[in-house]
Amino acid sequence: MRVAFLGLGRMGSAMARRLVADFDLTVFNRDWAKAAPFSTLGARVGGSVREAVAGAELVVTMLADDAAEEALAFGPGGLLASLAPGAIHVAMSTLGVATSDRLAAAHAEAGQGYVAAPVFGRPPAAEAGQLWILAAGPGSQVARCQPVFSKLGQGVFPLGEKAATAHALKLAGNTLLVTVLEALSEAFAFGEKAGIAPETTLKVLNTALLKSPLAEAYGGAVVRGAFEPAGFALRLGLKDVTLALQAAGALQAPLPLAGILRDRLQEATAKGYGDQDLAALSRISREAAGLT
Amino acid sequence: MRVAFLGLGRMGSAMARRLVADFDLTVFNRDWAKAAPFSTLGARVGGSVREAVAGAELVVTMLADDAAEEALAFGPGGLLASLAPGAIHVAMSTLGVATSDRLAAAHAEAGQGYVAAPVFGRPPAAEAGQLWILAAGPGSQVARCQPVFSKLGQGVFPLGEKAATAHALKLAGNTLLVTVLEALSEAFAFGEKAGIAPETTLKVLNTALLKSPLAEAYGGAVVRGAFEPAGFALRLGLKDVTLALQAAGALQAPLPLAGILRDRLQEATAKGYGDQDLAALSRISREAAGLT
Amino acid sequence: MRVAFLGLGRMGSAMARRLVADFDLTVFNRDWAKAAPFSTLGARVGGSVREAVAGAELVVTMLADDAAEEALAFGPGGLLASLAPGAIHVAMSTLGVATSDRLAAAHAEAGQGYVAAPVFGRPPAAEAGQLWILAAGPGSQVARCQPVFSKLGQGVFPLGEKAATAHALKLAGNTLLVTVLEALSEAFAFGEKAGIAPETTLKVLNTALLKSPLAEAYGGAVVRGAFEPAGFALRLGLKDVTLALQAAGALQAPLPLAGILRDRLQEATAKGYGDQDLAALSRISREAAGLT
Amino acid sequence: MRVAFLGLGRMGSAMARRLVADFDLTVFNRDWAKAAPFSTLGARVGGSVREAVAGAELVVTMLADDAAEEALAFGPGGLLASLAPGAIHVAMSTLGVATSDRLAAAHAEAGQGYVAAPVFGRPPAAEAGQLWILAAGPGSQVARCQPVFSKLGQGVFPLGEKAATAHALKLAGNTLLVTVLEALSEAFAFGEKAGIAPETTLKVLNTALLKSPLAEAYGGAVVRGAFEPAGFALRLGLKDVTLALQAAGALQAPLPLAGILRDRLQEATAKGYGDQDLAALSRISREAAGLT
Repeated sequence: MRVAFLGLGRMGSAMARRLVADFDLTVFNRDWAKAAPFSTLGARVGGSVREAVAGAELVVTMLADDAAEEALAFGPGGLLASLAPGAIHVAMSTLGVATSDRLAAAHAEAGQGYVAAPVFGRPPAAEAGQLWILAAGPGSQVARCQPVFSKLGQGVFPLGEKAATAHALKLAGNTLLVTVLEALSEAFAFGEKAGIAPETTLKVLNTALLKSPLAEAYGGAVVRGAFEPAGFALRLGLKDVTLALQAAGALQAPLPLAGILRDRLQEATAKGYGDQDLAALSRISREAAGLT
Repeated sequence: MRVAFLGLGRMGSAMARRLVADFDLTVFNRDWAKAAPFSTLGARVGGSVREAVAGAELVVTMLADDAAEEALAFGPGGLLASLAPGAIHVAMSTLGVATSDRLAAAHAEAGQGYVAAPVFGRPPAAEAGQLWILAAGPGSQVARCQPVFSKLGQGVFPLGEKAATAHALKLAGNTLLVTVLEALSEAFAFGEKAGIAPETTLKVLNTALLKSPLAEAYGGAVVRGAFEPAGFALRLGLKDVTLALQAAGALQAPLPLAGILRDRLQEATAKGYGDQDLAALSRISREAAGLT
Repeated sequence: MRVAFLGLGRMGSAMARRLVADFDLTVFNRDWAKAAPFSTLGARVGGSVREAVAGAELVVTMLADDAAEEALAFGPGGLLASLAPGAIHVAMSTLGVATSDRLAAAHAEAGQGYVAAPVFGRPPAAEAGQLWILAAGPGSQVARCQPVFSKLGQGVFPLGEKAATAHALKLAGNTLLVTVLEALSEAFAFGEKAGIAPETTLKVLNTALLKSPLAEAYGGAVVRGAFEPAGFALRLGLKDVTLALQAAGALQAPLPLAGILRDRLQEATAKGYGDQDLAALSRISREAAGLT
Repeated sequence: MRVAFLGLGRMGSAMARRLVADFDLTVFNRDWAKAAPFSTLGARVGGSVREAVAGAELVVTMLADDAAEEALAFGPGGLLASLAPGAIHVAMSTLGVATSDRLAAAHAEAGQGYVAAPVFGRPPAAEAGQLWILAAGPGSQVARCQPVFSKLGQGVFPLGEKAATAHALKLAGNTLLVTVLEALSEAFAFGEKAGIAPETTLKVLNTALLKSPLAEAYGGAVVRGAFEPAGFALRLGLKDVTLALQAAGALQAPLPLAGILRDRLQEATAKGYGDQDLAALSRISREAAGLT
């Protein structure tokens, strides 16, 4: 199967490397330097979106945000203009619901397919083909993506015919992640002022109560003060919580915890921590408690 | 070792049953009917606090709230008046930090010991001796509690010389638990309005992201609408979040997420859900989203 | 001076009627029925945007939301395409900052002027020429609007060269208004449960403390349960708080109170109160307190 | 009429000075230095609570917080022990609802009267007899306080037979005040990042919208950075919001805005601003927006 993979950041690169051996793969990245190494791995490197997707049956996108996805899809020489009739755009980026809806409508009108397939998992899980994939879109189109999904993930959650549903659930998940991190951060500052070291608070709460590897990973990063380099940049967390709130507004389903998260993330960004790891959100709880 | 166990609600009864075989045990409960069965198990049943603690080296309390603990400790014929010099009050109830501090000071002045030892775990874990115990107080006193702790729990977290520290961390833990429940409840309502069944939202988020048995247990109860009988009553969750906020006020460590939780729990109580299980908190997110 | 006035809702109609006598006025409304009566008042009625703005030196817009403003400005036959070089678009609608910025850039590129001039005041104040006008944009362009402003308002606040600044401040004002309403609503429910009638709470707090006619107006509507017809529809309040939060996100200036307001307004909308007056927001505080 | 006045802080002193000429007055203050000057004004200075209230028909208290009021009322040689049967304790301090209830019950049991009569107004209003008085308690007792109220205030709001009701409404009022201050502070930081000076934001919003002298006073203090000396100390604002939240918890009437206020005030206290004027709350919004 001919597959094009667009967007070679840390996640995208890890995913594309999984696909080289099993598929007839063309890659593309706006910054060509990240694409070049793939030629030695056996993939073709497209010089443009149009060139990359020519002849592809599936085109996977894995981009940083809605603006990048929209530019690549709707811009001149973009996906809408270049994709062959019947070919499928598989949007694995974390996108806003409105953007995902807009892509679905545009591709349908152009006689092209569109499947939303955002993922949970960090780059190492991507390297190992251990992602979890949330897939939504027309059933026959999702089925055609299955070989790619099988190579990338340890499981696929089918979420129905409406593509944007998968992006909605992905945003809910990222909001849950930030909630857990904020909750731990507040507990650490509270505990510290009560005389308990953050590592103790983490150990007790996650051993005796939560038992979540996610809490271990993010809580551990907070305890170690491991904020750089960013695995998942704080500003991307803010982006996702903001997108969740936008979707919640459209759905009329209030998310009061997310409102708090957005305020804290905005404060962190205003203070210059936006490019640090999401774990740096914990700095705000410390500062609000007068800890330095 | 002579041990007295005061407070035989669901948790207290399960814990006291663990202790019958290994210790010279006297039990007491304000409502005598809950104590009576222990006589057939080989324990003595005290007719009063004074009678129950006479000769006891350790006196464990496991009561519903601060008011009950204070009445039992400071009331006429209570623990302060009855405990032998050198005997230790082991407060395993979930108490406020100020109450725990007050108990520590009063017992010290009376020449009695005081160890704070709240637990994580539900009645079945108590039955099985699988609780997690947070222990704080003077080192030598905590050491003397070890035989009892070993029988009740799968592990003890020592938290230093200041007893109330253990209660502070227990409150932080219960706040974290309610946070996770509220976060899931918001995600369920959000998801439902996006067309995703709550059981799917739970399955995806807990399989792919959080991987927490706690989320599974509480989220599962929400999905099934299993609100009665209450395992952990909603009004007790409100009590604990309120105590956490009080402690946070005294420590000057803001807990913004807990502020939201308190509002939601208060709304649930005002609407008459206080005696249902904590999982009934999810009703508020549904109602706020216009779901019925 | 030739003036075109686009958008004849309750506010727009009241404003346009003020201008008929003093200016050479053409009006336009998408729904022609609202425009027709102006022909008997001495104004011309345009059949299209293009026709309405032909020859106009100033074109005032007073529309319900960003979508209407964008359609009218950027749509086919819209303002950008129709306005004469040097003519000025005076946006008196309450708009988002990003939309206002986009309009400013587009008009500048087209060689047209753009002044942001949102107002405070309700229809009766507009009838009486007693609005307050927040004006921003290039100084010479703002100066050319002065005759129109003088007819419509009791005062103009000049806010500098950057047009969107005026819209930002208007959004901050509407957020403040909703904050006062929410604060009163919470006080009413709190007071009611303490045995104090809402009218007493309002009388005491506004006589002895706040002394604000705004509080009197909105608090009075709450006390009387006067939710229909809507003077200022609740869904428009939600729109404006949402726009304020979007602007705050772009500016990196958290608005935690506004986060609460948005949740409450969303709940009100989800429950079907969106077309009632903003004062219906008070229903949420009552319901959360278990009052019926 | 013989009147005793206990508590001679800034407010208490100003109020007591109003009473010297018209009543047979004895004053008392824990720190004697503040009481001494009253002997030259024609009042007696009591050496103890017991001495001060001997023979008094009305005993007014104006103390800083619940702890001071409770110590003075319930402590050895305190009001409960010293007040003559039939004499009335007029609690003009800002007290928690639970404390006020406890005082009402204790005085009734002791055959003494108790009227709750907290006030709105700052020291200059007290000097001028221009306070607003919220009065609640048994009707005949409130009636007997009227001569004192007439001298101190420009108006009395009768709030029924249940004394604590007056304190509940006073707490609601102080919460409203802090809400307005926080709302302005957020608007100032938002405006500043949009290029609008805080004094402009204040002028526009209070001229065109809110028109509140309270907003003018507190907003003006923020704009001028006039945080010291404290007219109304920030930590007292935190105390009152905390008391309002406690009362709300007992009444089951959520106050979500107050939850935000408490977090911000706690942060301000943790950062060392507690002894500054309440207007210093604005520093938190600035810091959260990255302004310095």
